[in-house]
Amino acid sequence: MPPASSASSEAITAPASIRPVDLIRVGPRGRESRADVAAAEEPLEIRLHGSPFVVTMRTPGADKELVAGFLLSERIITGIDDIGTIRHCTGEDEAAAGNVIDVVLAGGAADRATSALAERRLVTATSACGVCGRRSIDDLMRDSPPIDAAWTMASGVIAALPVRLRAAQTAFEETGGLHAAGLFGCDGVLTAVAEDVGRHNAVDKVIGGKLLRDEMPLSGQVLCVSGRTSFEIVQKAVVAGIPIVAAVSAPSSLAIDLARSANLTLLGFVRGDTFNIYSGADRIIT
Amino acid sequence: MPPASSASSEAITAPASIRPVDLIRVGPRGRESRADVAAAEEPLEIRLHGSPFVVTMRTPGADKELVAGFLLSERIITGIDDIGTIRHCTGEDEAAAGNVIDVVLAGGAADRATSALAERRLVTATSACGVCGRRSIDDLMRDSPPIDAAWTMASGVIAALPVRLRAAQTAFEETGGLHAAGLFGCDGVLTAVAEDVGRHNAVDKVIGGKLLRDEMPLSGQVLCVSGRTSFEIVQKAVVAGIPIVAAVSAPSSLAIDLARSANLTLLGFVRGDTFNIYSGADRIIT
Repeated sequence: MPPASSASSEAITAPASIRPVDLIRVGPRGRESRADVAAAEEPLEIRLHGSPFVVTMRTPGADKELVAGFLLSERIITGIDDIGTIRHCTGEDEAAAGNVIDVVLAGGAADRATSALAERRLVTATSACGVCGRRSIDDLMRDSPPIDAAWTMASGVIAALPVRLRAAQTAFEETGGLHAAGLFGCDGVLTAVAEDVGRHNAVDKVIGGKLLRDEMPLSGQVLCVSGRTSFEIVQKAVVAGIPIVAAVSAPSSLAIDLARSANLTLLGFVRGDTFNIYSGADRIIT
Repeated sequence: MPPASSASSEAITAPASIRPVDLIRVGPRGRESRADVAAAEEPLEIRLHGSPFVVTMRTPGADKELVAGFLLSERIITGIDDIGTIRHCTGEDEAAAGNVIDVVLAGGAADRATSALAERRLVTATSACGVCGRRSIDDLMRDSPPIDAAWTMASGVIAALPVRLRAAQTAFEETGGLHAAGLFGCDGVLTAVAEDVGRHNAVDKVIGGKLLRDEMPLSGQVLCVSGRTSFEIVQKAVVAGIPIVAAVSAPSSLAIDLARSANLTLLGFVRGDTFNIYSGADRIIT
């Protein structure tokens, strides 16, 4: 659990923002089991007057603030007077409780909401089509069988991937502003690299490049990403049949849940000669 | 321009992935003008059989790969045989050239595309409703007047913001997996903080919290974010009337363009006692 905030401001991060996770830490002295925490990630469905408007992947906590800020940013509301009520929905199934918010708008905003709903049904461009993480994973696993690739990779090869990825990044050194994704063969040799301001785009680019060159399936490849791992990144790997995902930074709770459901090997904090195994430890030899 | 990639893999990052930018570097010895580069960010509209399907903010380059990977991830296609043609649209206006791709699908994928278009019109959850950056900015500026806040902030106060933001982050220390956004008064005192796996969500939370407490407008506040600055982050600040945005990492090209159009002060790489001014230097006293 995080310490209570000592800031004088309104700290609107609730304990729900983190979740306990068991992992295996790999380092020079071998493996050890650890209890750690991960950033919580869950879908939030925003409804306007009861009609679904948008689903966004977010960290639970400050949900009403998130919705108010989002509606301001989308120019559905212009101030607090435009909000009638804003509340979490009850009566949903238990798993979805807390992940659905309905907003009733007032005055001119109500008219704007009606036309926004009519003109464009905003749906998030991820596969998070459910309103709870469980439902998102169940939906995905219906169409994508668990990964059955049985090959293994040595921990020393894993540790070298981020260095090789960074060396292949041409634009990051210039700008400091790009995420990278790379595909590596089971021998640790780079086979594709892409950079983008959006990390999900960098992953789409390397996977899509393989598809366009008729080099699917990717069951013999490792995906390495320069940043954090969200549900969306693991989802893209699962659909492409990639058995190992290695990231320089942390995974979210939902990324870990999906990796475990899909029998995907998920590695995080791959730095120097150490990394964490969150799922699928059988594919890593130390 | 970046050096040519020396990797043996297919380097699919084109020179279009970076863009030259003039900035002012602020450090212990004062200000100096510099020529630098920023990560390019532009909207890409993906069409299926001529009908708009989704708009995603991306770094130009490897667009066809991006689209193929996205359609695989969305389970519209399952392999290369599902793609009939995939090409950049011509005949659009000049500014939009290169930012629209049309895909004609084959076989069963064509049917899936038809039902995907009928069931859900995917629209990205950002305000990037046009197909070129210019159009996105023009659209936004029609509804949001340029920022006219005339107060100033000393560079020493700016430099202290990321440290104060980090000190108020309760969950990041635990997980390493969360973005933070904070609002600070013109005296540099933290007034709101939020964390989220999505950086745009963290910004929505702090702005939305102010709105729900009827503390709008935010013309006396500075927004500080823990990571990079995309178009979307600056867009949210403009709509909320926040005159200064300070980020620990790099801004994208479109973030800089929007900040300049909106007369917003955009700061990046705020680390130690140095930072970059990309726009609105009049509000910073050194």
